[in-house]
Amino acid sequence: MDFQSVIEDIYQEVLPLSGQGKVADYIPALQSVNPKKLGIAIETIGGECFMVGDAQEKFSIQSISKVFNLTLGIQTKGDALWQRVGVEPSGNPFNSLVQLEYENGIPRNPFINAGALVVVDTLLDDLDRPNDEMLAFVDRLRCSQIDYDEVVAQSEKETGFNNRALINFMRARDNIRHSDEAILDVYCHQCAITMSCAGLARSFLFLANNGVVPSSDERILSSSQTKRVNAIMLTCGFYDEAGAFAYLVGLPGKSGVGGGIVAIVPGQLSIAVWSPELNRHGNSLLGIKVLEMFTTKTGLSIF
Amino acid sequence: MDFQSVIEDIYQEVLPLSGQGKVADYIPALQSVNPKKLGIAIETIGGECFMVGDAQEKFSIQSISKVFNLTLGIQTKGDALWQRVGVEPSGNPFNSLVQLEYENGIPRNPFINAGALVVVDTLLDDLDRPNDEMLAFVDRLRCSQIDYDEVVAQSEKETGFNNRALINFMRARDNIRHSDEAILDVYCHQCAITMSCAGLARSFLFLANNGVVPSSDERILSSSQTKRVNAIMLTCGFYDEAGAFAYLVGLPGKSGVGGGIVAIVPGQLSIAVWSPELNRHGNSLLGIKVLEMFTTKTGLSIF
Amino acid sequence: MDFQSVIEDIYQEVLPLSGQGKVADYIPALQSVNPKKLGIAIETIGGECFMVGDAQEKFSIQSISKVFNLTLGIQTKGDALWQRVGVEPSGNPFNSLVQLEYENGIPRNPFINAGALVVVDTLLDDLDRPNDEMLAFVDRLRCSQIDYDEVVAQSEKETGFNNRALINFMRARDNIRHSDEAILDVYCHQCAITMSCAGLARSFLFLANNGVVPSSDERILSSSQTKRVNAIMLTCGFYDEAGAFAYLVGLPGKSGVGGGIVAIVPGQLSIAVWSPELNRHGNSLLGIKVLEMFTTKTGLSIF
Amino acid sequence: MDFQSVIEDIYQEVLPLSGQGKVADYIPALQSVNPKKLGIAIETIGGECFMVGDAQEKFSIQSISKVFNLTLGIQTKGDALWQRVGVEPSGNPFNSLVQLEYENGIPRNPFINAGALVVVDTLLDDLDRPNDEMLAFVDRLRCSQIDYDEVVAQSEKETGFNNRALINFMRARDNIRHSDEAILDVYCHQCAITMSCAGLARSFLFLANNGVVPSSDERILSSSQTKRVNAIMLTCGFYDEAGAFAYLVGLPGKSGVGGGIVAIVPGQLSIAVWSPELNRHGNSLLGIKVLEMFTTKTGLSIF
Repeated sequence: MDFQSVIEDIYQEVLPLSGQGKVADYIPALQSVNPKKLGIAIETIGGECFMVGDAQEKFSIQSISKVFNLTLGIQTKGDALWQRVGVEPSGNPFNSLVQLEYENGIPRNPFINAGALVVVDTLLDDLDRPNDEMLAFVDRLRCSQIDYDEVVAQSEKETGFNNRALINFMRARDNIRHSDEAILDVYCHQCAITMSCAGLARSFLFLANNGVVPSSDERILSSSQTKRVNAIMLTCGFYDEAGAFAYLVGLPGKSGVGGGIVAIVPGQLSIAVWSPELNRHGNSLLGIKVLEMFTTKTGLSIF
Repeated sequence: MDFQSVIEDIYQEVLPLSGQGKVADYIPALQSVNPKKLGIAIETIGGECFMVGDAQEKFSIQSISKVFNLTLGIQTKGDALWQRVGVEPSGNPFNSLVQLEYENGIPRNPFINAGALVVVDTLLDDLDRPNDEMLAFVDRLRCSQIDYDEVVAQSEKETGFNNRALINFMRARDNIRHSDEAILDVYCHQCAITMSCAGLARSFLFLANNGVVPSSDERILSSSQTKRVNAIMLTCGFYDEAGAFAYLVGLPGKSGVGGGIVAIVPGQLSIAVWSPELNRHGNSLLGIKVLEMFTTKTGLSIF
Repeated sequence: MDFQSVIEDIYQEVLPLSGQGKVADYIPALQSVNPKKLGIAIETIGGECFMVGDAQEKFSIQSISKVFNLTLGIQTKGDALWQRVGVEPSGNPFNSLVQLEYENGIPRNPFINAGALVVVDTLLDDLDRPNDEMLAFVDRLRCSQIDYDEVVAQSEKETGFNNRALINFMRARDNIRHSDEAILDVYCHQCAITMSCAGLARSFLFLANNGVVPSSDERILSSSQTKRVNAIMLTCGFYDEAGAFAYLVGLPGKSGVGGGIVAIVPGQLSIAVWSPELNRHGNSLLGIKVLEMFTTKTGLSIF
Repeated sequence: MDFQSVIEDIYQEVLPLSGQGKVADYIPALQSVNPKKLGIAIETIGGECFMVGDAQEKFSIQSISKVFNLTLGIQTKGDALWQRVGVEPSGNPFNSLVQLEYENGIPRNPFINAGALVVVDTLLDDLDRPNDEMLAFVDRLRCSQIDYDEVVAQSEKETGFNNRALINFMRARDNIRHSDEAILDVYCHQCAITMSCAGLARSFLFLANNGVVPSSDERILSSSQTKRVNAIMLTCGFYDEAGAFAYLVGLPGKSGVGGGIVAIVPGQLSIAVWSPELNRHGNSLLGIKVLEMFTTKTGLSIF
């Protein structure tokens, strides 16, 4: 299939639709981004790359980093990780404490903030310099174009009182071991990772390839672990809009409030989109539109 | 692939594991079923059938009927249906009123009781004899082996006070139009449908075939509507265990407290299992095990 | 103390403040009342009466009837009543189902709708003609000026879907025995009682007199039971504003969305106010103002 | 009335009932207390003192200190305090975050932990050495027998992760200004105050005397502010058992998990009880029994 012309067509169709969403404004560093940016990148298992628009410009990947975080957590802890975080959709806005209280400090899944914080806590058991190891990890995914935006990281840290509340709430229920500062330092750096669509597509390719990085043949996760990450992306990857994304797009994926979305077609490819304007659920408005058109035009859906 | 020997192997492996779950006991008619029953049936788009064990014995399909209900609802209302019921996972036990109160009477999805009751309410706008039309509908799906168990239907009606509460709660919020009795009559009859694994596999085949019944070429749903039903099955089809099912099995499906589970492999086949013993989430314990082994042995997963 | 001049002063001060609240509009019959009405009546244990304004005009007492309902319930069931309804403040808007679900069908107190419906359910165990017996009961309280407004009663019944939901929700949890219709008939008639301020003050006097009607010496409740009803009025009598009323006024009392409020000064008197405009919590705006001024001017507070 | 013989009789009746509750065990320092301790003290406005049992032995007053905290808060902030904390019963266990989330960071009342923490936060605006000023404040209440148990204070600080969660949760909603450490230092010292029944009764006497310390004629709160504190004690002073306490005892009061309870009879006296064994709501089992018998024997109830 001629993916290049597919994404170019989509790009032309979607570009005029900007102006209907709202750029994330909870930290100043995100607010200053140009809302008109739009990039699309595809990377196939066979090694082909397709790009259009601002696909090589870096942006703040925010919650997309929770997939890297989870992958590292599975690598270091194995199945023991699932004693400390669940795999079920949360059915609630992403920062809710209600469910956490009801379920006694075990977060519903690793993509809500509480769950990601617990995964970071497990990483700290084993990793000495977790921020450096994250860079090294993404490098192993064949994407070296990754940086921390220190301004964003500091900003996240200074305003992350909900996350401090979550950490202490779970600590009171024996589900956190490391210090507030250590956990937040790693968590906020993860959120502050900057990557391009091209880099994101490349680094997610192992999830479309059964756990193996195609260009290096390095196994990152077992086949079964990969299936699990993909299942969690499908059911929990889009805040309170996972169900809608599942039928509109029909692919496992993850979004971030920086306006990025990555999705994978198992056995074939990964695709990343960036457009900073968000809908009311915190997902990129044009990003979802692009992916919906992509699966419609190509017939690539898991359903 | 030799599906017959696959399911025979699984059958032999799984049969000794019975005795660990608990047959549904909230109505007497369900409680009296033989807990040792185990049946598996596969139907492929190409027209092949494979069966093992009690695959031709009828049982109470219970919540599996919510898929027929939803399909009829989409057929009669089209996209207008989604103004009255959502598509998001509920993240709560299936009979919870909390979420319904929070979201002002719009059920999260059509597979929780509240959502199914709303879909029934919409059916009553257009269907004169909905119980007969359900039989006719399943007949169009090439499965004529369907009955209502009137004892179960009456029993559901007499004990269904939670459902009456849900109906009136939503009526107070303008999301129910027909009478309690009319809605409950249809809803309880749906739950009381009896079918065999063979019949279930056959009748779900259109969901694996893009919305078209393979043996008759009749289109039941559009391709896009089919994708939506499958997405909802994947994210919401297993009560509070949808996420776990998604990664263990990796197929869209639906379970019922009668011990049945149906799942589909898009583009290929449908598979139905029946084993009455349930786990604590209300899903068939051996049923999930069978499907997990099936996707492991065959490599058939959407992820 | 010269109560007559006290309430006349208050009446003059408060009258100009009308126009800031909102008459109850959830049923048409309540909506048509003149919002400018204002009446105050005091009845002392010694037998004195004081009135000003529209104190002899009847209005819909609505939830104030829950005190009569509770008193009858205690009379017929004694302490056994407290196995089916609690005595704790609800901390939630009055029609919430959340708490009821959390506490498995036992309403928090007899003044939320769920609690009052349970009390009605217990009355139906023992009373053959409960609507007539309610009239007879209030007559024993030396107030014969009581009627049912059948238009209001019917209207409550036709729109009371939340109450039907509550009944069935509790029935599913084994805390309701009688039919929806029987319970709602009694409940809706109670809400539709019309009385004047004068009649209300007179009929509540036994609660200020240790359980005994002063003018007849008839004991209605034991001293201990009376204390309990007064305590429940103080902690739960004003929907989500009980705490504010407790410090502003400092008297046990009960309000209704018809704009009435009754309060008692233990050992001394009862006082009733009527002004139909409500604040956002559903309590009479001027009614609370009148009672606040009354306790300030007279120093009569339990604190 | 001969209060001395009243409390001696009660003491003899109640003493044999010990052994049915459970001493608080969430911090080691509390757990080591002798569960058989029982003390009662009364102080009248007229200056009389009555004591029995361990009435002069100091114990950890824990949440009773929230009344001192609130009183200081009202003194320093006046009515502005009520913009940051409510006055309504919480209807939920005392450490719940659900209500706080629902009401956007404004605690329901100053006697749940969240509310007390907010009050501490306001104190820090104005007090330079709040721990010393608390000692000075209680000294003004004519009780110099007050200490901080530094072991308890440290223990509270080291295990108080729920409180850290609450602080950060409210900080995220703009209802906390000072640092975690500053707030927790004051809060945990308050909880670690040790006083005897005699000292508690004496220091609460101003609440029974319209806001004025009888022996010094110093006004601590205005009459209206005093009424408010008493109203909050009545509706919120006993965790999830305020309603039950209101009818069993019928007096405004406050309990702590150290086993202490103080209550006041407006215009007459204050009474303090200490018995470390708690019921399932966290209130002193014998303490409630003593107060119930006291109001029954003396007829002193506000209702």
